[in-house]
Amino acid sequence: MTDAISNVLAERYATPAMRALWSGEGKVKLERDYWIAVLKGQRDLGIPVPDGVIESYEKVKDQVNLASIMERERVTRHDVKARIEEFCDLAGHEHIHKGMTSRDLTENVEQLQVFRALLEVRKKSIAALSGFAKRAAQCRDIPMTARTHNVAAQVTTVGKRIAMFGEEMLLGVEALNALIASYPARGLKGAVGTRLDQITLFNGDSAKARALEERILHHLGIHASLDAVGQVYPRSLDMQVVSTLTHVASGAGSFAKTLRLMAGHELASEGFAKGQVGSSAMPHKMNSRSCERINGFHVILKGYLAMAAGLAGDQWNEGDVSCSVVRRVMLPDAFLAMDGLLETLLTVLNQMEVFEAVVEQELMRYLPFLLTTTVLMEAVKAGAGREAAHEAIKEHAVAVARDMRTGKVSHNDLLARLAADERLALKADALDAIMAQGKANSGDAPQQVDHFVFRVCELVAKHPEAAAYEPGSIL
Amino acid sequence: MTDAISNVLAERYATPAMRALWSGEGKVKLERDYWIAVLKGQRDLGIPVPDGVIESYEKVKDQVNLASIMERERVTRHDVKARIEEFCDLAGHEHIHKGMTSRDLTENVEQLQVFRALLEVRKKSIAALSGFAKRAAQCRDIPMTARTHNVAAQVTTVGKRIAMFGEEMLLGVEALNALIASYPARGLKGAVGTRLDQITLFNGDSAKARALEERILHHLGIHASLDAVGQVYPRSLDMQVVSTLTHVASGAGSFAKTLRLMAGHELASEGFAKGQVGSSAMPHKMNSRSCERINGFHVILKGYLAMAAGLAGDQWNEGDVSCSVVRRVMLPDAFLAMDGLLETLLTVLNQMEVFEAVVEQELMRYLPFLLTTTVLMEAVKAGAGREAAHEAIKEHAVAVARDMRTGKVSHNDLLARLAADERLALKADALDAIMAQGKANSGDAPQQVDHFVFRVCELVAKHPEAAAYEPGSIL
Amino acid sequence: MTDAISNVLAERYATPAMRALWSGEGKVKLERDYWIAVLKGQRDLGIPVPDGVIESYEKVKDQVNLASIMERERVTRHDVKARIEEFCDLAGHEHIHKGMTSRDLTENVEQLQVFRALLEVRKKSIAALSGFAKRAAQCRDIPMTARTHNVAAQVTTVGKRIAMFGEEMLLGVEALNALIASYPARGLKGAVGTRLDQITLFNGDSAKARALEERILHHLGIHASLDAVGQVYPRSLDMQVVSTLTHVASGAGSFAKTLRLMAGHELASEGFAKGQVGSSAMPHKMNSRSCERINGFHVILKGYLAMAAGLAGDQWNEGDVSCSVVRRVMLPDAFLAMDGLLETLLTVLNQMEVFEAVVEQELMRYLPFLLTTTVLMEAVKAGAGREAAHEAIKEHAVAVARDMRTGKVSHNDLLARLAADERLALKADALDAIMAQGKANSGDAPQQVDHFVFRVCELVAKHPEAAAYEPGSIL
Amino acid sequence: MTDAISNVLAERYATPAMRALWSGEGKVKLERDYWIAVLKGQRDLGIPVPDGVIESYEKVKDQVNLASIMERERVTRHDVKARIEEFCDLAGHEHIHKGMTSRDLTENVEQLQVFRALLEVRKKSIAALSGFAKRAAQCRDIPMTARTHNVAAQVTTVGKRIAMFGEEMLLGVEALNALIASYPARGLKGAVGTRLDQITLFNGDSAKARALEERILHHLGIHASLDAVGQVYPRSLDMQVVSTLTHVASGAGSFAKTLRLMAGHELASEGFAKGQVGSSAMPHKMNSRSCERINGFHVILKGYLAMAAGLAGDQWNEGDVSCSVVRRVMLPDAFLAMDGLLETLLTVLNQMEVFEAVVEQELMRYLPFLLTTTVLMEAVKAGAGREAAHEAIKEHAVAVARDMRTGKVSHNDLLARLAADERLALKADALDAIMAQGKANSGDAPQQVDHFVFRVCELVAKHPEAAAYEPGSIL
Repeated sequence: MTDAISNVLAERYATPAMRALWSGEGKVKLERDYWIAVLKGQRDLGIPVPDGVIESYEKVKDQVNLASIMERERVTRHDVKARIEEFCDLAGHEHIHKGMTSRDLTENVEQLQVFRALLEVRKKSIAALSGFAKRAAQCRDIPMTARTHNVAAQVTTVGKRIAMFGEEMLLGVEALNALIASYPARGLKGAVGTRLDQITLFNGDSAKARALEERILHHLGIHASLDAVGQVYPRSLDMQVVSTLTHVASGAGSFAKTLRLMAGHELASEGFAKGQVGSSAMPHKMNSRSCERINGFHVILKGYLAMAAGLAGDQWNEGDVSCSVVRRVMLPDAFLAMDGLLETLLTVLNQMEVFEAVVEQELMRYLPFLLTTTVLMEAVKAGAGREAAHEAIKEHAVAVARDMRTGKVSHNDLLARLAADERLALKADALDAIMAQGKANSGDAPQQVDHFVFRVCELVAKHPEAAAYEPGSIL
Repeated sequence: MTDAISNVLAERYATPAMRALWSGEGKVKLERDYWIAVLKGQRDLGIPVPDGVIESYEKVKDQVNLASIMERERVTRHDVKARIEEFCDLAGHEHIHKGMTSRDLTENVEQLQVFRALLEVRKKSIAALSGFAKRAAQCRDIPMTARTHNVAAQVTTVGKRIAMFGEEMLLGVEALNALIASYPARGLKGAVGTRLDQITLFNGDSAKARALEERILHHLGIHASLDAVGQVYPRSLDMQVVSTLTHVASGAGSFAKTLRLMAGHELASEGFAKGQVGSSAMPHKMNSRSCERINGFHVILKGYLAMAAGLAGDQWNEGDVSCSVVRRVMLPDAFLAMDGLLETLLTVLNQMEVFEAVVEQELMRYLPFLLTTTVLMEAVKAGAGREAAHEAIKEHAVAVARDMRTGKVSHNDLLARLAADERLALKADALDAIMAQGKANSGDAPQQVDHFVFRVCELVAKHPEAAAYEPGSIL
Repeated sequence: MTDAISNVLAERYATPAMRALWSGEGKVKLERDYWIAVLKGQRDLGIPVPDGVIESYEKVKDQVNLASIMERERVTRHDVKARIEEFCDLAGHEHIHKGMTSRDLTENVEQLQVFRALLEVRKKSIAALSGFAKRAAQCRDIPMTARTHNVAAQVTTVGKRIAMFGEEMLLGVEALNALIASYPARGLKGAVGTRLDQITLFNGDSAKARALEERILHHLGIHASLDAVGQVYPRSLDMQVVSTLTHVASGAGSFAKTLRLMAGHELASEGFAKGQVGSSAMPHKMNSRSCERINGFHVILKGYLAMAAGLAGDQWNEGDVSCSVVRRVMLPDAFLAMDGLLETLLTVLNQMEVFEAVVEQELMRYLPFLLTTTVLMEAVKAGAGREAAHEAIKEHAVAVARDMRTGKVSHNDLLARLAADERLALKADALDAIMAQGKANSGDAPQQVDHFVFRVCELVAKHPEAAAYEPGSIL
Repeated sequence: MTDAISNVLAERYATPAMRALWSGEGKVKLERDYWIAVLKGQRDLGIPVPDGVIESYEKVKDQVNLASIMERERVTRHDVKARIEEFCDLAGHEHIHKGMTSRDLTENVEQLQVFRALLEVRKKSIAALSGFAKRAAQCRDIPMTARTHNVAAQVTTVGKRIAMFGEEMLLGVEALNALIASYPARGLKGAVGTRLDQITLFNGDSAKARALEERILHHLGIHASLDAVGQVYPRSLDMQVVSTLTHVASGAGSFAKTLRLMAGHELASEGFAKGQVGSSAMPHKMNSRSCERINGFHVILKGYLAMAAGLAGDQWNEGDVSCSVVRRVMLPDAFLAMDGLLETLLTVLNQMEVFEAVVEQELMRYLPFLLTTTVLMEAVKAGAGREAAHEAIKEHAVAVARDMRTGKVSHNDLLARLAADERLALKADALDAIMAQGKANSGDAPQQVDHFVFRVCELVAKHPEAAAYEPGSIL
């Protein structure tokens, strides 16, 4: 069909595992499993279900024909009704959905999608943290120019910089863990949340209705549940989900921005997959396309966060469906974008390159400026007058900066000028020693790398399969 | 495929016309037309193109095989390169894309999609304004209780209320008209916006490069163009587009919210299509599903506005592709959501019902309260003392309100109490006359309806085909 | 001064306690305490500090002259430098801020403001939960019409509806508790996060630098800390803070929206303070100004969430100040808005009224429709044919609905019509019994109220002072 | 008072002119002028107003005591009522506000604030465009490396780059002009928009009520007006205002981002005011604090845009005050932030420096890579075999890139290597000529500068006073 439009996030960026969770077919299967679980629970609690009925449903549950369902919906104008009819027609029975309203189905199944997608995000996030830890450890002791205001400030190490962004991601993953642990399902609460319909089905025995709900939560694998809920679970819960995704993505965002900056200075590259256009023809072009894409995904997540926030705190009475179309878009697409972001991040962490020689050149360009206070201290120790030495250093530093900007010199020759100035009483070798010592002095940077690596190892120990995850091939 | 995910906005809500603009196939065709237009322009301006080449391209331009293109992209890691190869292989030549960079193609073709989609939105918006005007005219003189703070305030007419939301939409459509009139294309500016590559192609003749660009703008049908542009057009232009869509949707949003409120009071209903589940079983259920959906679409648009705003003012140097994934999602999806919103709005405007009897009942419940100042004035005219009359009215009004809240009375019997109070010297018939007069007195409301209808007629006169547009069937 | 502009959130809505945390004067005092704490720590760890110096600082620390500080800033163009000079001039010494960069001060002090403000928000949120619990318990067994799509759906109780919004808030408060428990301070990490300056101050003894940091965290009262941090703490942490505020506010938002709807049906009122304009003149006007304001505050919070999200994941290298002006606005104003929201919510919870008689009238209007399935069941039990009974009920229900909309009847007389129809074999008293039973049957609603009250009690037991909090007077 | 909190945007960043528009005192004065204008209009149209009354109001209209007004509001709980009482007590009469509701005052006066603030923004925006034009003209012919993906791409000129951001701003200013031209006032429409109260005041003569409204619009200086409006003007109009501010700010945002990048490469600096801390001690530190601030202001504006969007399309019936607290914050603060942004931008445009020598060095580093296709073409002309030449160039280019990254060479010596390779048959002087020619070849960049300057001149010719505006001193 000429006007078919695929979901671009699914098609271009997300992985099969995440797509399967959100696909039309995947959802229909989750729903059918859910209906069967409810039916079994009802039977076990005393509702008569003729022999063979459950088996009939189970036999056909994987026969998903989305076109047929859509055909029914165009008649009934009711999506759940359409899916009930389809499933019942396939099974040849009408036993599912007893005492249930649409939301008893859809709220819980959508929460199941969210919950499983959160687990998937956690898995890949831990893999990414593992990647940050590996890279940080590799570069633990490579001194580099730390920048504030995008300008040289002090010495750090490449590893510390990487650990810094990793630690930001770690904060997000901790929030994700807390969310997963507390995420509550709505449960089987009926049309307005009072459990009336199931209680009626059990002839007024509300203990049985609660027991059925317990079984359903067990089926979902979600441990917490809501209680005094309406037709829908509070949409602020969706906001918490999307805001947590945005949080987890933030360390990646900062890392990607900084890697783009570093590529502009030729300090590093995100690396290239084989066959990518442009690399050999323009060997200087270290395009940070993947990092740019990570930043793009983050902007997307913030847009879905705005949608989620737009629904929060807007419940009228026991609820309505003004959120419906929003959640159909926002929930899958936020997770698909997050999935794309994590795949891209993992790829960058795998392929990135640091150009140590250029890192060193950059450091030597700025180090003399960064160490002027040390030079002053040493000059005074060596017998120079404080005021004279201070004045001399300031004069030369300003002159060098000016000469570099006007093109008089192309390298930082501050050391040579200082060595030649008698006011300072410091020879070239003394100045070189100051440089060598200053270059190596990145404070606690290496220890901070160790600490970050340690924390990631603790997390990986709890989720060993996650750390082993390897991203698929990205576009 | 089990994990196929369609674009839910396209599949469930948008129309074929809007889908065709944004579909993968539709875009490939727009691109091929564009390449051919450039090639023709180059030929006409002196670049040698062998006979038959253009014809070869034209012959195959509708043979779109998205899977084959995606296959190529997985090899080249470059989407435009993949599409060039595909088209050239089909045509058996390599003449397109001469002197062009990817952005010379994609920026302009995407702008063409935006521009044509804006025209489509204008068409349906004018149809909706026409619907507002019809409904407002029909209800021009039906008095009703206007509410502020969701509580009865003064008399208005149903038609005026409808015109009020129509006028909000009209403001948005005027902004849309201004945007369409000024929307500038990027043009054929090369990799960094200097037109260097086309100038080089024309052996340094920049006049020819400009002439080629003129022809391309003509092909696009866009009259304005950017000049000192970089690799990309400023992304704030996308923000203006999405914010204008959100603006146009705002009148619909307010209207839908209010119709949901009115349905809660049984004053009106959005109407029902035949076959819709729930109406006969629960005849009191006037579910405003379509209006809720309109509000949902508006939340979605605001989320895409956040994405568009996230890109604005973030251009690094001459540009990069950090916006790419965002625009792949935001631009089509904002227009698809807008399309769905307008289709839903048109359907509601076609099917809505006003229950005049209930409107009248509601008015009679509040009118005595609303007219107490008139009663006071008339009582004084009839000889009552001002202070005594004021006190009497206040006493009774407060008592009636209290009695209604405590269930002592179920109807507003303020008039009877006032008639029975000798302090006021007003008989029941005098009070009835005040009510009758007050009920009919909605100030300029009918004239405001006329004025709105007049303005819509002016607009429709310029776009007669738009007003004739009829929405498709919605889910 | 004619152009003085106060912070409207502080001036009109926030409480003195919250204002004190964010006022210019309050912040200067927090900073001075912090500097003194650092100085003491340095002294205790071996940095020489002459006798009397600390005392001199302590003596003047409450002498805050904001105009004088601003005067200095206009000269130095550096806000921290200005505040150092002011404090040192007052004390007559220059010992503070040793080995510190601006961010060693500002990051930690701002985090302290955030942390204390979070505690303040928690206190009032628990008070609000306590208010929800009280109201829910009071109305535990008052049956009412639950609405979905803003239309009557099933029976619930007023208490359950209140508990429902309380439970939404409870979810937010649990997220707030998790945030408070894990909120990490940046600590004394120097210009680029390596702790170099403090290590240098301690002659290379990094253990001492870490020990100093431990003392500072203790001074702040914040238990967690960041380690591999740059010049700034990750701004995604601010996003988590503002998103948690927005989450906590969501239950209030839904509650306020619903109370506005209920006031429109005269079912309830947010109550009025004495002296408020408008109530006696227009006794029907139950304007929900405070609830509208709560919804307004929520929109404001979502705007600050957009600002916070705008900063997240945008760190360049070790950081810069592009976030500075944003955080100066967003952090105080988000907390001031939250404070205003909570004060308003507490006032509404204190003053709201439920009009039970109107609630009952509304229920009796819809209950016959809601119980048609029960009527059918009983009719069959009483001997009616299922098909005939179903047809009869449907006919009458549709007719009543139509007659109500067309004004033929003003009350729901479905029961009378059913009693008169011989096809059903049900007398008026049997139908009345069905109504009485149906009205009382709100499923688990009362138990859900109990469960909510229980959970709030558990929380209050941990924070007894919070539950005792009484809001100030609001505008 | 220890907890006084000023509006940080007003206090630190905005100018007196903008502050005066939004200050409490300024607004009270605008309101009083408005009331007097209404009173005069009513008198002229026949409403009796005793002699001397208007004069009494005029005499006291500048006596603004905000504390006294707030004192009254704490009693009345109604802000407009408090301000009426204050003004009337001062004047000794009670003639203002006749036939008016609060919104007849506040909607129009707030729109007047918005309208005048838009004019102020236009003035400074034109001044900024003028600054862009001056800078672009100055640097029209300075060749520089254009970057895409933050990496060298082609040659442009510094002036073209500046014009590019100027042109983005120009698009925003055109949208601003359209908004100013079409901005409609609500007018004197009464409590629910029907003009009932004024019509009643004029004894049913609605022509007089309309005539009064015309006079009021004239007083406001706003030419357009709404007609079928409710209690409030549509809040989507506020969204259009804030989105237009965000649009105008976008060119500044992109410019500031790019200047921050350029400072990181020492190509340019935003310049420094005298006395600023840090410049002499660290002469390499070209901190882009002002540019960072511009980006911060833009994030703030996007947050206020989210607030404005949160109100759009959310009108319930004829309106309520759920928007009130939002608009109290968003409208002033968006304009104050915009004012701060424009002041900062104007300062940067005044003080920025371009370091031409470094720009030249950077260009020479990348130019050999950028011109490899020209080298190939010339080599073939000079007799080399195409395949051999292509292979040679590619070999050398990749080798040079690798050697630069590994530190083998610190400068780009591709030219020397090419000159030494016999496969190419090009001598050093031929290669130098290619470089010289390529360096000078920035396509239409200079012409694009001219075109931008021309368009700004046209605009300045219409607003000559705007272009002359000089920013105040910034922090």
